[in-house]
Amino acid sequence: MSKVEAKLAELDVTLPAPVAPIANYVPFVVTGNLLHISGQVSLGEGGGITGVVGAEIDLATAQRAARLCGINLIAQMKLALGDLDRVARVVKLGGFVQAGPDFFDIPAVINGCSDLMVEVFGEAGRHARAAVGVYRLPRNFAVEVDAVVELAP
Amino acid sequence: MSKVEAKLAELDVTLPAPVAPIANYVPFVVTGNLLHISGQVSLGEGGGITGVVGAEIDLATAQRAARLCGINLIAQMKLALGDLDRVARVVKLGGFVQAGPDFFDIPAVINGCSDLMVEVFGEAGRHARAAVGVYRLPRNFAVEVDAVVELAP
Amino acid sequence: MSKVEAKLAELDVTLPAPVAPIANYVPFVVTGNLLHISGQVSLGEGGGITGVVGAEIDLATAQRAARLCGINLIAQMKLALGDLDRVARVVKLGGFVQAGPDFFDIPAVINGCSDLMVEVFGEAGRHARAAVGVYRLPRNFAVEVDAVVELAP
Repeated sequence: MSKVEAKLAELDVTLPAPVAPIANYVPFVVTGNLLHISGQVSLGEGGGITGVVGAEIDLATAQRAARLCGINLIAQMKLALGDLDRVARVVKLGGFVQAGPDFFDIPAVINGCSDLMVEVFGEAGRHARAAVGVYRLPRNFAVEVDAVVELAP
Repeated sequence: MSKVEAKLAELDVTLPAPVAPIANYVPFVVTGNLLHISGQVSLGEGGGITGVVGAEIDLATAQRAARLCGINLIAQMKLALGDLDRVARVVKLGGFVQAGPDFFDIPAVINGCSDLMVEVFGEAGRHARAAVGVYRLPRNFAVEVDAVVELAP
Repeated sequence: MSKVEAKLAELDVTLPAPVAPIANYVPFVVTGNLLHISGQVSLGEGGGITGVVGAEIDLATAQRAARLCGINLIAQMKLALGDLDRVARVVKLGGFVQAGPDFFDIPAVINGCSDLMVEVFGEAGRHARAAVGVYRLPRNFAVEVDAVVELAP
């Protein structure tokens, strides 16, 4: 078992089947030593986490939604690379929160994904990111996150 | 005529004059073998397609708006590269839909752009993407899409 | 003094201490010859500029907010590179405006950041960009901008 997969097991994270794109695109593209992963929504067992953050769902639920996005990102990394130990660095996350009118604690939501990356990949999981509150997300999912990942040679 | 231009002719797509930036930036930057294209709005003949999706305009209109963004992206590729056959891969699209309060079918909108990329570039047009519903877009355009493109050596 | 720092002095721009991430991520990641900088908000002296653009604050204030984001981006470049003359090209800016319901002049806002890049870095500051109006931003800041920067070898 790879180091990263051992860490996932220790964290009790089971990677789902990678989410198939719901449109005419692909879940990831490799260019040079960079892996670009399509935006992953907060889909999970039982349908995942939907709703407007701060109105229909609370911060803690939204953080779990962001963590689901992270799990789905890692599932795509696994599909793309075979071996998760080939992740040299999580370079950048783009975090989108479906925010309600009075909800400004967007960084705390995306931490649900950021924290997972650091838990799983250690120093290699420390990334740059942008986090914004959008108005609506695909199929009412609460959070979407995309990623750029650097691959080991 | 290049293969890609022949395909555009077959699809009856006429590339417009590339849209000049409406501010102090440039339409694209090449770094290494990657072309970064500025966000292209749904500008077209007669002014293009504006309005809030799901409130002022419907899904089909919004899909045509996304296709316009795609045409404008290809016009910028042509300006940047001269020969569209130099596109090795459309790596990533960032799709932004000006969404109304009850509109969640954001992937279907951005398909208007994604489908065009695959129609025009074939396998090289299959890209990673993120698609989100933002609140307002420049000058009330319905859709904006930016892109990262890999160039052939 | 480096050329770029001399220019900053001429423009009377004082770089602040780089903003520490308010979450479990890092302010920038270098991969290859590219520097990815996390989204910088309109934080500044006295707390910076917050509010919904077009509702609570006007265009001119929002432009100053975008300029603050630019100053914070340059502060991160300085922290990452030591010498700002190592900036070969500002490749891409992602501009996010916290827009009110009737506010569509998003490009004019982000110009506050774009103009600064060109003032400070000259031709090397001319970048591709996307600019969108999001619904809510972290801690109610008016503007957030992230960046990709190419480094001199």
